[in-house]
Amino acid sequence: MNLDLTSIVSRVGVPDDAVRELALARQGVLTKPAGALGRLEDLSVWLSAVQGQCPPTAPRAARVVVFAGDHGVAVRTSAYPPAVTAQMVLNLLAGGAAANVLAETVGAKVRVLDIAVDIDWAETGHDVPAALTRHKIRRGSMPLDEGDAISRDEAERAFLAGVAVADEEVDAGADLLIAGDMGIGNTTAAAALIGLLAHRGPAEVVGRGTGIDDDVWMAKCAAVRDGMFRARELAGDPIGMLAAVGGADLAAISGFLLGGAARGVPVILDGVVIGAAALVANALSYRARNWWLAGHRSVEPAHGIVLDRLRLDPIVDYQMRLGEGSGALVALGVLTCAAATLANMATFDGAGVAGPVAP
Amino acid sequence: MNLDLTSIVSRVGVPDDAVRELALARQGVLTKPAGALGRLEDLSVWLSAVQGQCPPTAPRAARVVVFAGDHGVAVRTSAYPPAVTAQMVLNLLAGGAAANVLAETVGAKVRVLDIAVDIDWAETGHDVPAALTRHKIRRGSMPLDEGDAISRDEAERAFLAGVAVADEEVDAGADLLIAGDMGIGNTTAAAALIGLLAHRGPAEVVGRGTGIDDDVWMAKCAAVRDGMFRARELAGDPIGMLAAVGGADLAAISGFLLGGAARGVPVILDGVVIGAAALVANALSYRARNWWLAGHRSVEPAHGIVLDRLRLDPIVDYQMRLGEGSGALVALGVLTCAAATLANMATFDGAGVAGPVAP
Repeated sequence: MNLDLTSIVSRVGVPDDAVRELALARQGVLTKPAGALGRLEDLSVWLSAVQGQCPPTAPRAARVVVFAGDHGVAVRTSAYPPAVTAQMVLNLLAGGAAANVLAETVGAKVRVLDIAVDIDWAETGHDVPAALTRHKIRRGSMPLDEGDAISRDEAERAFLAGVAVADEEVDAGADLLIAGDMGIGNTTAAAALIGLLAHRGPAEVVGRGTGIDDDVWMAKCAAVRDGMFRARELAGDPIGMLAAVGGADLAAISGFLLGGAARGVPVILDGVVIGAAALVANALSYRARNWWLAGHRSVEPAHGIVLDRLRLDPIVDYQMRLGEGSGALVALGVLTCAAATLANMATFDGAGVAGPVAP
Repeated sequence: MNLDLTSIVSRVGVPDDAVRELALARQGVLTKPAGALGRLEDLSVWLSAVQGQCPPTAPRAARVVVFAGDHGVAVRTSAYPPAVTAQMVLNLLAGGAAANVLAETVGAKVRVLDIAVDIDWAETGHDVPAALTRHKIRRGSMPLDEGDAISRDEAERAFLAGVAVADEEVDAGADLLIAGDMGIGNTTAAAALIGLLAHRGPAEVVGRGTGIDDDVWMAKCAAVRDGMFRARELAGDPIGMLAAVGGADLAAISGFLLGGAARGVPVILDGVVIGAAALVANALSYRARNWWLAGHRSVEPAHGIVLDRLRLDPIVDYQMRLGEGSGALVALGVLTCAAATLANMATFDGAGVAGPVAP
């Protein structure tokens, strides 16, 4: 396996500055006091520049891809049994998870991918669609506190799978991408990645995940410390970090986020797991973040570190900690409002409304 | 005119505590870690209690009523010419204003009412619907810095008109109410009301409105000071305050907010003008706020005072200052997300997903 990162990174451009200026100018002639829509104006101008058109179109074909994967470390660091990952994959397929309900509400579609769930679906008798496992790398990533979570070859394959999924979605018409995560133990992997990339200690990056008590929190800190110690020589090798502590699902998400940027589509980030993958993608291309919005601020402490490093201001802050892209989906509703105002409001001239009195 | 406030106030009940408990319990069995949806869970539980049913239904027939009115003081306190109020009424009727676009996006309908616009539509040749002026009280409220904005009789009639509009909307099937405001000078009236009801000085409550410079800001402070001085003996007489400094549109909005509470429907508040009217309604019935959500936090300084007094936590904080119900409409999108999760997510049992490992 030879991962040609240079080729992918070279495809990441920058949003259109000339269109950004047009969008700013258009905001100034809509029937409202200048700046009166506050953050909505900023979001609409950003979307215009990313889409390369003014006015922008409100996202009509947003796609959430939920990357599911198990983590061997979970038995020591989670409040939930690892079997929940596969059960939640079925729930997502059946439409009963938060991501399904929120996507339906804001007009997005959900795709679930088994990247590294510790299950052989054929053995279970569950009738899952073939597409679910099209990009499966392996059954579960190994315990990151004992050794590398996955091999370097697996990390490269998973990363490329993520890039390919972004391409598939954009080719199929997606006009906005959201990555979601599902996997018992994945906040442990995310904490280790963020600790490594942001140079923070375990206690700064380890949170309560799905809701662990103090004893499990200490075990989670220990696991993150062991993983970070093993990976201490990997500065400058983000793919190596994904192999050492991230695991297959985090690697695929990193590729997906970079792939979205490479395709020049708007991407809304979710919480701490997606944030960890975003830090990896940002380490590969500092331009990638221009194509991303921070959907929300999670209660996970490491997520605040990610937002600071990426200099992204979250759209909502609702003390959410669910994953699945749920926070990003709530934010998509706000972005749609912002886009609609810039696209569809009347102008002063068009509506025959007077502007401010000249001072 | 005899305003029977006691009768209206007596109709304001409290949301259903038993249903609130059911909603809390249901949140605990949905397929997610307990509490993982953060604020969305709180909003969904609130809506359940207000609707008196668990699960709640996402609002399907939300109605924004924009109360338009002119204020004689505006010539000294606004960056915009008073003629803009009537022009914006036409823009709202034509569907080009921010409220129209946001309502379309989040699935609400807009109704515009000329409560006190300083215009005789028949003279203008504009073909406006008869319903626009059905509740019109007068042409413009008078300058609040020179004398009472309206008479007590007008204040009572405007207040009752607001109550009647809430009744009309709920009778027509509205399942959520939003009050919007449109009127050059209306933040001057709002500042004076908030100063009186929250015991603050002019400089604490006067903001930049549509975007005034320092000279106009000082003139606005002086106008608010003069209005508050005239009204200084009106403590305990909220209707008197509406007459003295609020004007007809603020009086109608106060009635509408109290009327919504009396009908037991959810109400989302908007910015500083609606906030001032909410303080008046809250002074008449301390129970009213149980039926209200704070949609957003405006940049107007007096709005923060309102939110503190009402102990309401805004759903979004986007530095908006537009009025028309715009901030409340963005918040409606979030409330709809919250309601949908509680209503439509699968339960652990229903989806065959395991709960947390017993400690």
